[in-house]
Amino acid sequence: MDILFASTNSNKAKELSKLLPNHKILLPKEMGVEFDHEEIALTFYGNALGKAKELFDIVKIPVLAEDSGLCVPALGGEPGIYSARYGSDGVNKLGDKERNLYLLDKMKNISERKAFFVCSMVLFIDHYRFYICQETHEGEITYEPKGESGFGYDPVFFIPKLGKTAAELLPEEKNEISHRGKAGRAIASLIEKHWSK
Amino acid sequence: MDILFASTNSNKAKELSKLLPNHKILLPKEMGVEFDHEEIALTFYGNALGKAKELFDIVKIPVLAEDSGLCVPALGGEPGIYSARYGSDGVNKLGDKERNLYLLDKMKNISERKAFFVCSMVLFIDHYRFYICQETHEGEITYEPKGESGFGYDPVFFIPKLGKTAAELLPEEKNEISHRGKAGRAIASLIEKHWSK
Repeated sequence: MDILFASTNSNKAKELSKLLPNHKILLPKEMGVEFDHEEIALTFYGNALGKAKELFDIVKIPVLAEDSGLCVPALGGEPGIYSARYGSDGVNKLGDKERNLYLLDKMKNISERKAFFVCSMVLFIDHYRFYICQETHEGEITYEPKGESGFGYDPVFFIPKLGKTAAELLPEEKNEISHRGKAGRAIASLIEKHWSK
Repeated sequence: MDILFASTNSNKAKELSKLLPNHKILLPKEMGVEFDHEEIALTFYGNALGKAKELFDIVKIPVLAEDSGLCVPALGGEPGIYSARYGSDGVNKLGDKERNLYLLDKMKNISERKAFFVCSMVLFIDHYRFYICQETHEGEITYEPKGESGFGYDPVFFIPKLGKTAAELLPEEKNEISHRGKAGRAIASLIEKHWSK
């Protein structure tokens, strides 16, 4: 089945395509739809639902959406829902590399390095029918970026049991344990076992 | 696995027990926990999440919660999230029978009888991990109550393809097609196939 993914992030779309191999994940631009949602909710699931609803109201077909981010308890949960905008001045957005250095700078005098990624994924069938699966991935903030794979905060996110950062993992290894992998598999199992029945 | 259900409604607990035959559904009172959540959200999923969070913060173990109701488009979506409190004066709550008569009275001059039940069910594992499955069941409002089975609005909810009200169905027949049945099976499939892995 073709599933429209409410995002402009082709990295996330690629990860999702691997999680839903029986379906074709389309980005709005591939359907000729302009979509640039402003995230105004105060929760991951609120932002994911907001994106899904906005795109659903345009296309009137089921939509997949997600919001994700990194939470660092020692920073009071920052960057959290502001992960993609962290360190930005409201006009210019930092690139992944600068944003990671900004986070490491904030953490420079902090020895408590625990952190977790969160992913809230939504399958929005219509305004009264939807599924939300929100999952986490636990790790630690490194002292310097490491690895070239993945995207976002992956190079500064260390996974103790693997002895590697998320950016040192192959895409399949990352999907196996990541927040987006878990949420995506949960949504995928609902699509396969429940919704399409 | 024992799963705590954030409710005081033993009818709903009975329905859930049938949907999750591999698990024991416990009500808070059966664990000696006082629980009487005030529903303040403006959405079904918001109320379900609110109940789950409140009980989770007391018991610190995974919690199942749901909010459900009847929406009548010709009444602007009423009774909706206020289904259990519909027709009440804020002090005394109507019983199921009086509430159904109250609804039928509101509908007495309305020929457009379409209606749907909504159920939002939540499995709350912790504050960052949870699943929400929201499902619907479409039907029509009768002109008079019919049937003795079920509870709530079941006697005034007619299912055209079966030619019966929800209160004329056996519990198993109702679970097969109902909003709560669908949402419960979706959550059950996540518990079996995803969460417990």
